[in-house]
Amino acid sequence: MRLTTGTAEALALPHGFAFSAVRAGIKASGRLDLATVQACPGTTAAAVFTRNRVVAAPLEVAKVSLKSAKGRVRGVIVNSGNANCATGEAGLKGCQRVCKEAARLAGAKAEEVLPASTGIIGVPFPAEKILAKLPDLIAQANTSELGVRQFSEAILTTDTRPKLASAVIPVRKGNVALLGVAKGSGMIHPQLATMLVYLFTDLGATPRELQGLLKEACRETFNCISVDGDTSTNDTVLLLASGQSGVRLKDAGAAKHFQSALIAVCRSLAEQIVSDGEGVRHVIRLYVEQAKHYDEALQVARAIAHSSLVKTAWAGADPNWGRILAAAGYSGAEIDPRRVNIFIGDQQVCRAGQAHDFDEAAAHRDLSKPHCDVRVQLGRGRAQVRFYTTDLTAEYVHINADYST
Amino acid sequence: MRLTTGTAEALALPHGFAFSAVRAGIKASGRLDLATVQACPGTTAAAVFTRNRVVAAPLEVAKVSLKSAKGRVRGVIVNSGNANCATGEAGLKGCQRVCKEAARLAGAKAEEVLPASTGIIGVPFPAEKILAKLPDLIAQANTSELGVRQFSEAILTTDTRPKLASAVIPVRKGNVALLGVAKGSGMIHPQLATMLVYLFTDLGATPRELQGLLKEACRETFNCISVDGDTSTNDTVLLLASGQSGVRLKDAGAAKHFQSALIAVCRSLAEQIVSDGEGVRHVIRLYVEQAKHYDEALQVARAIAHSSLVKTAWAGADPNWGRILAAAGYSGAEIDPRRVNIFIGDQQVCRAGQAHDFDEAAAHRDLSKPHCDVRVQLGRGRAQVRFYTTDLTAEYVHINADYST
Repeated sequence: MRLTTGTAEALALPHGFAFSAVRAGIKASGRLDLATVQACPGTTAAAVFTRNRVVAAPLEVAKVSLKSAKGRVRGVIVNSGNANCATGEAGLKGCQRVCKEAARLAGAKAEEVLPASTGIIGVPFPAEKILAKLPDLIAQANTSELGVRQFSEAILTTDTRPKLASAVIPVRKGNVALLGVAKGSGMIHPQLATMLVYLFTDLGATPRELQGLLKEACRETFNCISVDGDTSTNDTVLLLASGQSGVRLKDAGAAKHFQSALIAVCRSLAEQIVSDGEGVRHVIRLYVEQAKHYDEALQVARAIAHSSLVKTAWAGADPNWGRILAAAGYSGAEIDPRRVNIFIGDQQVCRAGQAHDFDEAAAHRDLSKPHCDVRVQLGRGRAQVRFYTTDLTAEYVHINADYST
Repeated sequence: MRLTTGTAEALALPHGFAFSAVRAGIKASGRLDLATVQACPGTTAAAVFTRNRVVAAPLEVAKVSLKSAKGRVRGVIVNSGNANCATGEAGLKGCQRVCKEAARLAGAKAEEVLPASTGIIGVPFPAEKILAKLPDLIAQANTSELGVRQFSEAILTTDTRPKLASAVIPVRKGNVALLGVAKGSGMIHPQLATMLVYLFTDLGATPRELQGLLKEACRETFNCISVDGDTSTNDTVLLLASGQSGVRLKDAGAAKHFQSALIAVCRSLAEQIVSDGEGVRHVIRLYVEQAKHYDEALQVARAIAHSSLVKTAWAGADPNWGRILAAAGYSGAEIDPRRVNIFIGDQQVCRAGQAHDFDEAAAHRDLSKPHCDVRVQLGRGRAQVRFYTTDLTAEYVHINADYST
């Protein structure tokens, strides 16, 4: 497997997908804000949506469409600048009209077009602006890398950069390509709904097979990141498989290699999302180890990653292990503090729940780097989780408190 | 019932308790840092402790002592400047020695002296400094208001002011006095353990009766406050009843009036703790209404009060109801967003899960006041909770990130 990430390297482009983006005047900035992916007939899909009970209209539509099309997908339509959330019946109808018209133009069924929106919550959905641009948008769809890059820019909101990762997976019958495009500033912004992730491959697989792969990959990656702990109303991860490589998931060796590549691409996108969180100065790779089971490790990691006190300590590069221990203590996991070890960088700072002599200046230097490892051992079992999180800076507060009457 | 709060008014002093405080050199500032309450024979007690699994040594000792003394208490000994947490076997032994010596000097049993500590976590417990000052401390105990005020100052850490509230409860057989003294900067500070609350009354009641009253009062007050959502390792609420008023809980009318007074005193102390949170500019009285049951209301209130996005919006006096709705959505409560109404100050800002026209400038002005009401109606039932919380300011981050190598 060859993994390429970020914006500098050439991307692997899976066969069977065409991309384009236009300016529909939804974003006040006048930037690209409407994008599509056109998928060849026979493309299958799997999706994971936010668990928030407040969900945007496009998610309601997409869930119903995926079901009635039995996991077959011919296109994706995304707008940025408006989340189409808390917009009531009008928002739902507007979304349905957009899908219907996009399907008509592409010669597909309405339920084969999956919608997504990201941007401001509670503002009426600008269906007319989108409908007016659909013919141009769909006519321009192309298979070039430029098309992908424009798509990746059109789905951004407060992100400072596009998020891209791809992989080529060599299997006996040929090469399979996997491409991931994500959006998310790592935090839910002033009324902005956050994370969208699109994954494209030319592998062939049934919707059910894809769903299993996607769920497992999300569990280890997008479910293990946190900037501010808030769950968005629009979070969507979509995996589309065109089958155009001629390789099927069931072919010898394909499943294992594809799953590794999928996790690697998702992990890269997850890291890119966390790193781009506004106000973020330090990304923390938090390892919770020796848990009884995976969910326990995750429970402890989340409590630590969501603690304002831990996060502000990290902002100051303060090796304040007492806060980490206290957060583990209230996580709900039945830990015994006398068995807990904590490491910052490569130094042990807490041993068996008590202070352990360490070089504070060196720990401060480690935490001052853009990335730092923090390791918490619970002494209860063998399960572990790798969690990506960030510091909580005054800049974050300024960005999110900024309001002008 | 006559309620007095804060530091300006004369306090009600329950009979049967003597107070004092000294400087033991634990705080680097040289301020009062060791305090005691001496209770007359026959005093009964109830206690509520932190649910954090990382607990300080004095809590371990106090739990065992309360049990073996069957709820009888003769004294309390508190130090500030050191939390005696994450201090291992030495911390436990040091705490036991202090209790034993304090009991000897007061002519009581070791298990009748309840210890508490608040201050830095993970630093060795200075038992010798405390033991050296115990004779003076206990000899000076007195029943004056000055004694109470010195006690209230000696238990502070990063608090900017003492927290006091008292009530006189007239019942047929005579007056009952209730006095509350609390400590807590409203947030857990750099390795500082937070909330201590002492409640004294001259009512007569069994430990079991007191426990029921205290649990109920905590549920409505101290369990409904949040500054940063972190649960301390040292939180303790203690209720002591001397019986010296001659009125017993079982006397006609006493229970009802005393319970009201207890809740009023606890609520005042809870508000004082939240208001004194460092970096706090706005206190929010968050009402979650129309919940199916109390725990559901609390679940939603906590999700909103712990959301960094909601709290930073409040810091900017931003009437951003979308973040409040989204936090309710991921709270875990099975809300239907289409039934949710949200009010800021006296204006409705969200109706049936959608934007409701309101005067943004007026809402901004309401949120700019030191106190503002926010009301969330779930449309699911009749249960409700009143929750006190705060904004999350850049000042909070500066205070908690401040670290100098």
